[in-house]
Amino acid sequence: MESHEPCRYDEPGGRIRGPPGGEGEFNTDYSVCGGGGGGGGGHWSSSMKSGGTQLKLIMTFQNYGQALFKPMKQTREQETPPDFFYFSDFERHNAEIAAFHLDRILDFRRVPPVAGRLVNMTREIRDVTRDKKLWRTFFISPANNICFYGECSYYCSTEHALCGKPDQIEGSLAAFLPDLALAKRKTWRNPWRRSYHKRKKAEWEVDPDYCDVVKQTPPYDRGTRLLDVMDMTVFDFLMGNMDRHHYETFEKFGNDTFIIHLDNGRGFGKHSHDEVSILVPLSQCCRLRKSTYLRLQLLAKEEYKLSSLMEESLLRDRLVPVLIRPHLRAMDRRLRLVLQVLASCVEKEGYGNVVEDDLTGDTTTLRSPGHR
Amino acid sequence: MESHEPCRYDEPGGRIRGPPGGEGEFNTDYSVCGGGGGGGGGHWSSSMKSGGTQLKLIMTFQNYGQALFKPMKQTREQETPPDFFYFSDFERHNAEIAAFHLDRILDFRRVPPVAGRLVNMTREIRDVTRDKKLWRTFFISPANNICFYGECSYYCSTEHALCGKPDQIEGSLAAFLPDLALAKRKTWRNPWRRSYHKRKKAEWEVDPDYCDVVKQTPPYDRGTRLLDVMDMTVFDFLMGNMDRHHYETFEKFGNDTFIIHLDNGRGFGKHSHDEVSILVPLSQCCRLRKSTYLRLQLLAKEEYKLSSLMEESLLRDRLVPVLIRPHLRAMDRRLRLVLQVLASCVEKEGYGNVVEDDLTGDTTTLRSPGHR
Repeated sequence: MESHEPCRYDEPGGRIRGPPGGEGEFNTDYSVCGGGGGGGGGHWSSSMKSGGTQLKLIMTFQNYGQALFKPMKQTREQETPPDFFYFSDFERHNAEIAAFHLDRILDFRRVPPVAGRLVNMTREIRDVTRDKKLWRTFFISPANNICFYGECSYYCSTEHALCGKPDQIEGSLAAFLPDLALAKRKTWRNPWRRSYHKRKKAEWEVDPDYCDVVKQTPPYDRGTRLLDVMDMTVFDFLMGNMDRHHYETFEKFGNDTFIIHLDNGRGFGKHSHDEVSILVPLSQCCRLRKSTYLRLQLLAKEEYKLSSLMEESLLRDRLVPVLIRPHLRAMDRRLRLVLQVLASCVEKEGYGNVVEDDLTGDTTTLRSPGHR
Repeated sequence: MESHEPCRYDEPGGRIRGPPGGEGEFNTDYSVCGGGGGGGGGHWSSSMKSGGTQLKLIMTFQNYGQALFKPMKQTREQETPPDFFYFSDFERHNAEIAAFHLDRILDFRRVPPVAGRLVNMTREIRDVTRDKKLWRTFFISPANNICFYGECSYYCSTEHALCGKPDQIEGSLAAFLPDLALAKRKTWRNPWRRSYHKRKKAEWEVDPDYCDVVKQTPPYDRGTRLLDVMDMTVFDFLMGNMDRHHYETFEKFGNDTFIIHLDNGRGFGKHSHDEVSILVPLSQCCRLRKSTYLRLQLLAKEEYKLSSLMEESLLRDRLVPVLIRPHLRAMDRRLRLVLQVLASCVEKEGYGNVVEDDLTGDTTTLRSPGHR
């Protein structure tokens, strides 16, 4: 990162937002902005993160803060080819950034802070890494740019090297959640998870009554979890993310807690296509929080148009424009589709059976986990 | 292939050409056009070819003729990214086709016939292959196209699958040379071979007097072999092919024979860049056959312009336009660069020391191997 001044992530959108705080608010002390102010801070070391399929780096700062760096693999203009499966799509740094902003605009606050940065590959990765395997993959390209490819299961080879210009590379930096020793997390399989197989279909794809099964299965049989999954469905559909195989929660809060959406890099792959299968949980369950429903209706209005809010919000990221316009426009189009699905749910099952009122009573419990 | 009528490959360009025949003329009975006429011919089986790094298939016809199929991996418009090394570049089916036409226009006749075809992946590959490993890699893409990826060392994975529309795929079909049992071949290392290493340089890159060493080394110390390599240099520079690590000869003719240029798929990767290092053999040796020199001068004239001849010649291929215009224009530009190098050679060393007269005496021996 070229500079390391402190920064705040709690107000990316600014124009409309719910009350601050609550457990859904991520602690901005997990700064992805570096050494906490002054010129003396800065970047300390880089190493590869194990797990996952594509290359990512852990950046450690002088104040022992850490952030997850995902380097740019595609330009903003490239669309995922139509023959690509969701599971072989590239992970996009700009999708990680945009997902964080979208989450705040939806007022979910379930995505840890992610910010775009230009990283100097020589000074901030190659020269400071103690990861020999990573270091060995650096080279100078025929166009005299610095490149590296690291070690991972997909796309870690010379042919898929990540190259700077000449050694500056874009990437996303995501704040780390508290260490697992301090705050253990539970990973939950998404009931509407895809098959991750070229030929097999998932149960929800063949059973139109699949939601009835889910509704009877803990933790979806009580509390707010099913509503959380519905919110997640809307969130993923708006960005075209088909890769939501899991979500997480903090273990100490049990089942009555908010959910966390990590790994949003496969959103924003195609602006010219709306993947309606992502909406299946919503159309099968016909349930949604009232606060989410109202928010979506607001974002469909000309004066609070989702694309405009996203654009305005993303202006605050260093890698502006994070998304090209066709992606912004696609979100407006998809929002209308969500509202259409909800309208036909209401028509079929009645407003009261579809829209769950989470707004009555004490407003301080709004969005607070464990309360309906 | 959608039809299998017989075809002729001996006159792709038509407008200017040398006398037919000679050992440089490939036997068109090795038809890549299928069953030799009539509807009854046709395609019989497909299997993967071992060796080499990228996927290619052997197609066997009902008359036992065989051809080498290289499927399309890139669109005609895609350029090799500037950070790619020559050894990780894709092999292009259209480069194979265009190289065959260029070889004929240069009147070298050292490239076996290659023709473009649309292949039905279902009927002509999947349903007829007895290669289980190949068969297993077929799948249907999210866009409902038939795809496969085969087995090979590079680019044989789901992420690099080759997909039809919905099951038609473009490819090049190259005539097989006579079976090795009938006509053994010798593979020669190109003295100006690249290092095939990201950091190492080859000897010719650091020693300006490298040609003096080559000239004293058999088989370059006598006969026409050095002149053949100079022709090859011009050929590769015109198409931007950096991947000429080897060339071949038929063993029975000994050292006094023509050379064969197989594997031209890495030509035509960048139309916006002229890779002058490909010309180094010519600028280091300052030697060229008179027939080649005259041909190049002719192709630089407006009325026999190389790009026009190539365009006209490629009209006869089923996959017209095989090359987009920027590639054609690049060839004219590169031809001027070749002539500039030769002009400065002549100025420095004198016409007689640069241009080797292969045109005196009996004209029937023109281009005939073993004669100077």
